[in-house]
Amino acid sequence: MADYNAPLKDMKLTLNHVARMPALAEKPGFEDASADMVDAILEEAARVARDVVGPTNWEGDQQGVQLKDGTVQCPDSFKAAYQQYAEGGWGSLQFDPEYGGQGLPFLLSIPVMEMWHSANMAWGLCPMLSQGAVECLDLNGSDELKAKYLPKLVSGEWTGTMNLTESNAGSDLSVVRAKAEPEGDHYRVSGEKIFITWGDHEMAENIIHLVLARLPDAPPGVRGISLFLVPKYLVNEDGSLGERNTAGPLSLEHKLGIHASPTCVMGFDNAVGYLVGEPNRGLACMFTMMNNARLSVGLQGVSISERAYQQALEYAFERIQGPAVGTKEAGPIIRHADVRRMLLTMKTLTEAGRGIAYDACGSLDFAAKADDAAEKAAEQARAALLTPIVKGWCTEVAQEVTSLGIQVYGGMGYVEETGAAQHYRDARILPIYEGTNGIQALDLVGRKTLMDKGEALAALIAEMRAAVADTDTALITQAKQLEEAIVGLEQARELLLKGAENDAVMPGAIAYNFMMLSGYVCGGWQLLRQACAAARLQAEGDDDPYMQAKQDSARFYMAQILPRWRGFAEMLTDGSRSIMALPEEQFASAWQ
Amino acid sequence: MADYNAPLKDMKLTLNHVARMPALAEKPGFEDASADMVDAILEEAARVARDVVGPTNWEGDQQGVQLKDGTVQCPDSFKAAYQQYAEGGWGSLQFDPEYGGQGLPFLLSIPVMEMWHSANMAWGLCPMLSQGAVECLDLNGSDELKAKYLPKLVSGEWTGTMNLTESNAGSDLSVVRAKAEPEGDHYRVSGEKIFITWGDHEMAENIIHLVLARLPDAPPGVRGISLFLVPKYLVNEDGSLGERNTAGPLSLEHKLGIHASPTCVMGFDNAVGYLVGEPNRGLACMFTMMNNARLSVGLQGVSISERAYQQALEYAFERIQGPAVGTKEAGPIIRHADVRRMLLTMKTLTEAGRGIAYDACGSLDFAAKADDAAEKAAEQARAALLTPIVKGWCTEVAQEVTSLGIQVYGGMGYVEETGAAQHYRDARILPIYEGTNGIQALDLVGRKTLMDKGEALAALIAEMRAAVADTDTALITQAKQLEEAIVGLEQARELLLKGAENDAVMPGAIAYNFMMLSGYVCGGWQLLRQACAAARLQAEGDDDPYMQAKQDSARFYMAQILPRWRGFAEMLTDGSRSIMALPEEQFASAWQ
Repeated sequence: MADYNAPLKDMKLTLNHVARMPALAEKPGFEDASADMVDAILEEAARVARDVVGPTNWEGDQQGVQLKDGTVQCPDSFKAAYQQYAEGGWGSLQFDPEYGGQGLPFLLSIPVMEMWHSANMAWGLCPMLSQGAVECLDLNGSDELKAKYLPKLVSGEWTGTMNLTESNAGSDLSVVRAKAEPEGDHYRVSGEKIFITWGDHEMAENIIHLVLARLPDAPPGVRGISLFLVPKYLVNEDGSLGERNTAGPLSLEHKLGIHASPTCVMGFDNAVGYLVGEPNRGLACMFTMMNNARLSVGLQGVSISERAYQQALEYAFERIQGPAVGTKEAGPIIRHADVRRMLLTMKTLTEAGRGIAYDACGSLDFAAKADDAAEKAAEQARAALLTPIVKGWCTEVAQEVTSLGIQVYGGMGYVEETGAAQHYRDARILPIYEGTNGIQALDLVGRKTLMDKGEALAALIAEMRAAVADTDTALITQAKQLEEAIVGLEQARELLLKGAENDAVMPGAIAYNFMMLSGYVCGGWQLLRQACAAARLQAEGDDDPYMQAKQDSARFYMAQILPRWRGFAEMLTDGSRSIMALPEEQFASAWQ
Repeated sequence: MADYNAPLKDMKLTLNHVARMPALAEKPGFEDASADMVDAILEEAARVARDVVGPTNWEGDQQGVQLKDGTVQCPDSFKAAYQQYAEGGWGSLQFDPEYGGQGLPFLLSIPVMEMWHSANMAWGLCPMLSQGAVECLDLNGSDELKAKYLPKLVSGEWTGTMNLTESNAGSDLSVVRAKAEPEGDHYRVSGEKIFITWGDHEMAENIIHLVLARLPDAPPGVRGISLFLVPKYLVNEDGSLGERNTAGPLSLEHKLGIHASPTCVMGFDNAVGYLVGEPNRGLACMFTMMNNARLSVGLQGVSISERAYQQALEYAFERIQGPAVGTKEAGPIIRHADVRRMLLTMKTLTEAGRGIAYDACGSLDFAAKADDAAEKAAEQARAALLTPIVKGWCTEVAQEVTSLGIQVYGGMGYVEETGAAQHYRDARILPIYEGTNGIQALDLVGRKTLMDKGEALAALIAEMRAAVADTDTALITQAKQLEEAIVGLEQARELLLKGAENDAVMPGAIAYNFMMLSGYVCGGWQLLRQACAAARLQAEGDDDPYMQAKQDSARFYMAQILPRWRGFAEMLTDGSRSIMALPEEQFASAWQ
């Protein structure tokens, strides 16, 4: 099985020439994020990902997880890898120094997180959920809660979870039933939560569950949900661990993939909990966590795509089969045009996704460090708009990329031992969790476009046009191909704004196609920016072949991937018409 | 888990109004295939598929197969289901009465086979391979071999396998190494074959392996491969079973899906075998078998899509979640536009695939019963052209359909117990076996288009144009949408014919996109024909709501699926340019 090697050159080019890392390093407080420091961090993370985390991936999938005596047992190698991760301070890069964080840009944590998920996505979910818990507490918790819980979450000594879903409350959280009764300075939380990622394990001393529940007199619906912090072990005043709380895993799901990530049904039985934020404002608190989690899931799409690409590429060089056109001897299958097509599809979709994900995350830093309110609002709106695209599009294309990863292997890809199938199975969760891609698409057309009358999208399109205008001569054909697609996106925006006025169903009906159109155009935009940067560096004398390869990536994408935009653009013009035509009771009329 | 119900109305409409069943029933020898008989057969098959085979699917996946003491043990319920299948004569429908067959059209066996694969694809592979063995022997075997082996294969008392692949000989069979030494009236076959579906089991008394191997003085390459019949148990002169041959399973593959279908590494250790056909002509013999097998695999794509659709649909009615636009109460998720989009995508891709598959198979019957050589050649060329489209396109779209089957379930889709994931795992083999879809695409552009200078494709396009011209007023918009796509296919054809003259790599580079373009256009053509037939029947007074639903299917497909053709058409114009640009050694330049 191929080792994972972080694509450092692509990560650095994307950070520095797309996601504006150098400008960020000049912001007050980010002085430590010098180019040298960034390089050093990425290189060390790459080493840990390759040598420590990566080798646990296949073994973890084979061993899976078990629930024994009320405790989840995860694969043998995971605990050691997690300890190296925590001791290396990898979980604290972007957090507040007040709580032990390193105060580095969130953006810098992104390629690092990409590496963990490429190395082992099932394992990487544990740190990812912990980071979400830190963000949520940091923004919403009282000073007391923060002082007591944040330092150990930031250091990685403890991990965190997110407890939202119940069996009847999935995409619609308004019907959450878990409840919390006040008792002195705390609450007693009761209920059952499902699909709780890393809900239990023994890699860390304690687990901090963030749980949505209702107060006794809470109004029905989303305005009656509060957020509670429920530790696995109660924490004494001096920070030492007390008795075990009445909160724990009841059973584990038997899943298609991410076998080594325990997905728990969690039971809260009068468990001690603490209110986070205001009563009845729990969903808003959770959303601060969920937005970053959505970016992280999109990034997981990039990660698993990269891993699948590296593995397929290794096989394409190893596997000898029939002579390719123009050759006489049998040779490695990478010489066949269709295998190249598959590999380049994998490569360029991954690179495009990386561009969108990093760029979106960078905006969050720029918003945090903005000089004025207008800049802050613009960067926030940009990140908010890109979030459902990162989550939705990068995870949709991860399905295709990991499937091609199997296809390059041919029959061997269907055999579990080669590992190609694991990436495919693991990837399939991505369009589902943290809000299904249907929900992402609705978010994109609704909250992110209709709600601001398409302003943020217009600003993004203006940025794209500027990138086209700014294109190097070597890539002028590609810029023109992209420009046509941008026009398509512009028309889709108008169609949405106008269509929604007369047909309330239309935005939801076109949402998925709108998201996919946006994703393909954004992907092209990002690749064009990457390729122009590479062309400039090449012109300045950088003779690393990567610089040429990046330009070839952009050429392939514009010619062989981007044209998909035309289909989505045409589908949009159908509005809700053919989607809503068939009466519900006729869906089964062929056999009823 | 949803029962499987054969979509009989769609099957019958497709048989009778697309695949020309009534015209076939008028051919000499097919008198038994009256409308009543066809209906009776389909209804009985539907019952067996629902009540006998269908219930074994999930259990089979969970139990899997084991190799014990040199014999494969398959799931408990499989043997009983297989015996009912054999006793019902389901394996003999289309075969020669001389060997115990029922002499019915091949076309009639297609919906029946579709049902088995929908009911249980892993199980259905065993009869499917047996049918391939019958076809191959029937066409290539000596009278003696046929008399000895065909009756029991036709009756289903014995099953058959296909032994082509070796670890170094996959897509390129020219390097097959297995060998055969003459010994009296038979041969001694030695070698190791991999990926042998149902290579061993105890559902039937004997297994007839068809094996590619080389004679001692055979020339190298594909012209030195011969075909041998190697029985699991030797067969005495009187037809009784003799001793066990030295041919059997060495190990089983641990696969992503079709867990209940044993995929064997087969060892032939000086095993007794009999030459089938001429020496060194084995590959040609095998191809007669493989062509039908490719159609069958395409049909499996339709089958698994149908099953996934039925299951997702059941859940979409059961699962209650948040109010849809325009409603106030929570309701079944089928009310949400995006869920409808997913279900209609599943439904219409399945129906389109059914149309192409049945229509292609019908041509084989018309070729067999042709009145003259020209008609025979035309029907043969039509079937040959459609074969890689059926295999390639129907199995590609099965990936999307089964993935949507998971997505409709949301989080529950990722949990194995719901069964949605099984279809997704099972479906993933389809683009790989019987020639990867890359190979299908090459076959389509090469042997099926360039070789006859695009004649068969031109004839098919003319048929499509005729269908457009023949369209009912109610579907005139859809016919126009299709017409644009037909023009796109026509241009692609010209591009291929012209481009191949100057660039030998180009056909292989555009092959996949060419196949997908062809598939989407053929799918639209078939749906238009189905919908026009439904509109006519409706106008004639048939008030079954299915007739309206079919027209809605065509409307959805043309507006929401067919537009994908535009992307493929544009990609084709890039030829081999961007696919061949990146030097091999630069694919890994981001980390090397």
